[in-house]
Amino acid sequence: MTLRGAMGLPVVGMIGGGQLSRMTHQAAIALGLSLRVLADVAHDSAALVAQGVVLGEHTSLPDLQGFADTCEVVTFDHEHVPNDLVQALEAGGHTVHPGSTALRHAQDKVVMRERLSALGVPVPAFTPVATARDVEGFAKHVGWPLVLKAATGGYDGKGVWVVHDLAEAQEVLASGVRLLAEEHVVLRRELAALVARSPEGQGAAWPVVETVQQDGICVEVVAPAPGLSEDDALEAQRLALRLADELGVVGVMAVELFETENGLLVNELAMRPHNSGHWTIEGSRTSQFEQHLRAVLDWPMGETSLTAPWVVMANLLGGEGEPDMDRRLHMLFGRDPGLKVHLYGKEIRPGRKIGHVTALGSDLEQTRRRAREGAAHLRDGRWVH
Amino acid sequence: MTLRGAMGLPVVGMIGGGQLSRMTHQAAIALGLSLRVLADVAHDSAALVAQGVVLGEHTSLPDLQGFADTCEVVTFDHEHVPNDLVQALEAGGHTVHPGSTALRHAQDKVVMRERLSALGVPVPAFTPVATARDVEGFAKHVGWPLVLKAATGGYDGKGVWVVHDLAEAQEVLASGVRLLAEEHVVLRRELAALVARSPEGQGAAWPVVETVQQDGICVEVVAPAPGLSEDDALEAQRLALRLADELGVVGVMAVELFETENGLLVNELAMRPHNSGHWTIEGSRTSQFEQHLRAVLDWPMGETSLTAPWVVMANLLGGEGEPDMDRRLHMLFGRDPGLKVHLYGKEIRPGRKIGHVTALGSDLEQTRRRAREGAAHLRDGRWVH
Repeated sequence: MTLRGAMGLPVVGMIGGGQLSRMTHQAAIALGLSLRVLADVAHDSAALVAQGVVLGEHTSLPDLQGFADTCEVVTFDHEHVPNDLVQALEAGGHTVHPGSTALRHAQDKVVMRERLSALGVPVPAFTPVATARDVEGFAKHVGWPLVLKAATGGYDGKGVWVVHDLAEAQEVLASGVRLLAEEHVVLRRELAALVARSPEGQGAAWPVVETVQQDGICVEVVAPAPGLSEDDALEAQRLALRLADELGVVGVMAVELFETENGLLVNELAMRPHNSGHWTIEGSRTSQFEQHLRAVLDWPMGETSLTAPWVVMANLLGGEGEPDMDRRLHMLFGRDPGLKVHLYGKEIRPGRKIGHVTALGSDLEQTRRRAREGAAHLRDGRWVH
Repeated sequence: MTLRGAMGLPVVGMIGGGQLSRMTHQAAIALGLSLRVLADVAHDSAALVAQGVVLGEHTSLPDLQGFADTCEVVTFDHEHVPNDLVQALEAGGHTVHPGSTALRHAQDKVVMRERLSALGVPVPAFTPVATARDVEGFAKHVGWPLVLKAATGGYDGKGVWVVHDLAEAQEVLASGVRLLAEEHVVLRRELAALVARSPEGQGAAWPVVETVQQDGICVEVVAPAPGLSEDDALEAQRLALRLADELGVVGVMAVELFETENGLLVNELAMRPHNSGHWTIEGSRTSQFEQHLRAVLDWPMGETSLTAPWVVMANLLGGEGEPDMDRRLHMLFGRDPGLKVHLYGKEIRPGRKIGHVTALGSDLEQTRRRAREGAAHLRDGRWVH
C-alpha cells in the first residue's frame, strides 16, 4: 500500500515528539509534507507545532503499528524504541528507516563497539562487564580511572560514570544496569562527523565539527572544527560514510569522535538528526533535517556546503525561575540582529535543553562569543563577558 | 489580557490559510511559537501543517472575533478582510498588525494612489472612473491604451485590464466593479522593495529585487536586481521605508515598482509577506516570514544581508494532469543538489501557484537557469533548455 498525503507525496511518520521531530517538521513543510508524529503527550515539543500528531507509547507494539499503518515510511527522533518492536514493524511490511539491523548499533554500545572493532575502526579499549571481577580484570589493562557506560538507554551524560577505584565501580554495578567498561581516553577535544545515506547508498557528509561538552551535555558546536587538518577531516568523513554503508544506515548518522594524540577514536553513533548538526539549519545549504527526510524518502542528497566561514551553535539550557522569554528575545534581537534563535516550546527546567542559538560569521572568536552570549542571555537574562 | 503559549511567548494568529501562513508557521516554529491560523477549509495550505487551526470565514465578524480572542496579536496572509471588520476588532481591544488605517492602503488602490500622490511619491497618472465619459476624459490626457483596475480585491493579474478603446473600456465598466484608470506605463522592468517595520518604528530593508511577470503573475524574482545602480536601489529602499513609516505599517510591506526611463513609479503595496520576498527564506539571514513575526511581536528587526551573491526564486505553477511529484522531486534533486524546493501542499491546477524553487549562486545566468529549469521540471516533468 502506498500512503500519500498532499500533492500525492509520501507520508513520513516520526516516532517521538521531541525537538528533533519539531525541527524535522519545519523541514518537511518546505518539501510539501506534513510530518506525522507519534508523541507521548500533547505538549511534546513537536506535538505543539505539527498537524498530524498521534499520542501513543513508543514501547507499545499496538501503538507503533497503528501509527505505522498511517505512514509510508517511519523514522525516529530517538533510539528508545525496543529493537524487537522495530523488527516487528518490518515483519509487518512497514518501511522503517533506519532499519532494525542498523539501529541496533545506535541502541546498544556493546553491539556497536564489537562491530566497529571487527571492521577495524579505532575505538577506545572496552569490554562488557557484569561483575567486580570483570572490572578489576579490565582495570589491569587500562588502569584507573576507567569509564563505565550503560549498554543501552544513556544520553546527555546519563548512563556514563567515571570510576576511580573498585568501590566506585561496585556502586555502579549494584544498579543492575547492563554495562561496558572502557578506557578513560585522554583526549584533546571531541569532534563529530555528520553524514546521511539514502537507501540507494548515496552518501553525503557535512564538514566535521568540534563539539564542546559540559557535564556530559553538548553546549557548543563549531563548524568547521577549528584547526583540523584537511587529512584528518577527510579521514573522519570517510570513516563516517564507510560506517553508514557497512551498517546499512538510511537517514542521518552522527559519529561522535575523540581526537587524541594517537588519532581519532569513535565514541558514539546516533542514527537520526543530532545535536551536533543543528548548525546546519542556517549554516549549510541543506539542513540535517531536510537531508534526513530526503534520505528516508529515497530522494537524492542535498548540497552540504557552508553558508558562512564559521558557524557556531550554542545550546540553550534551562535556567532558574520563570523567565520572561518575550523580553529576553527583545533584548537579544536588539543586541545581535544576526543571531538565529530556536526555541523548542518545552517547559523550562534547570539544565534541560530548551533551544539553541546559531551565529554565523567570518571571525571565529567573534562568532563563538555571539553564540555564547546569546545562549547565556536567554538562560539567565544577563550578559556575560 | 495577555495570551501566552509555550514558554510564555505571545500567541500570534494569522487570518488566512494560504502559503504565506504556511511559511510563516515554519518561521514561527523556530521562535518557539506555534502560529494560530484562521483557515477557510481544513485542506488550506497552512491548515495542513499547523497545529492551531481554526476554521472560519474572514468576512464574518463573529468568526474573526472568536479567533482574535485566542490570540495576543492578529495579522494577515491576505488583504481580503473588510476594513470595517478590522476596525471592529481594534475597537474590541484586539491588537491587529498592520492596523486598519495602514491596511486600507493595501486594500483600496484609489486610497493608496491618492495618499501616495499627496506624499509626493511618484505614481502612474491615475483617476477614479465610474462612466465611459470619465474614461474618455482621462484618455485625452494619457492616450490609448490605458489600464483599468479594480479598486479592491485584485491579485495575480486578476482585476487588471489593458483597454485599447472606449468599447473595450465599456465592457469592463459594465461589470459594475469600482474602478480606477491609469496611464499605460512604458516600463523597462518591474522591481520590488521589501521592508519591515516594528511598532516602535524600527525599519529594515532587504536588497531591491527584480520581478518578472507573465500574464500578470510573478514567475521569477532576482535578488539583488541586476544592474540597478546603488543610487536607485537606495532611493527605492528609502521610499519603501518612508512609506511604511508614513502609513504606520507594522509587519512586512512590499512596494511594487515600475522602472521607467524617467525613474521609479510605485505600482502596488502589499502589507504582509509577499511573493517577491520568498527568496529571503534561504537568501537572507532573516526571512520575510521571521521578520514579519518579529515586527508584529514588537521584537527588533533581524539582519537582512544576502547569503549568496545571487538568489533567484522561480514560482512553480500547476501544469496539466496529475503529476508524480515524488518522482519529479527525485529527478530534480539528483540533477541539482543545491536547489531549494518549497511546495505548498495545494491541489494542483493549471496556472495555480503551488510552490517555488530557490537557487543561490555566484553566477547570475547560471543561477537563473537553475531556478527556471527546476520550476519547469516540477511543472511539466521535462527539462527545458
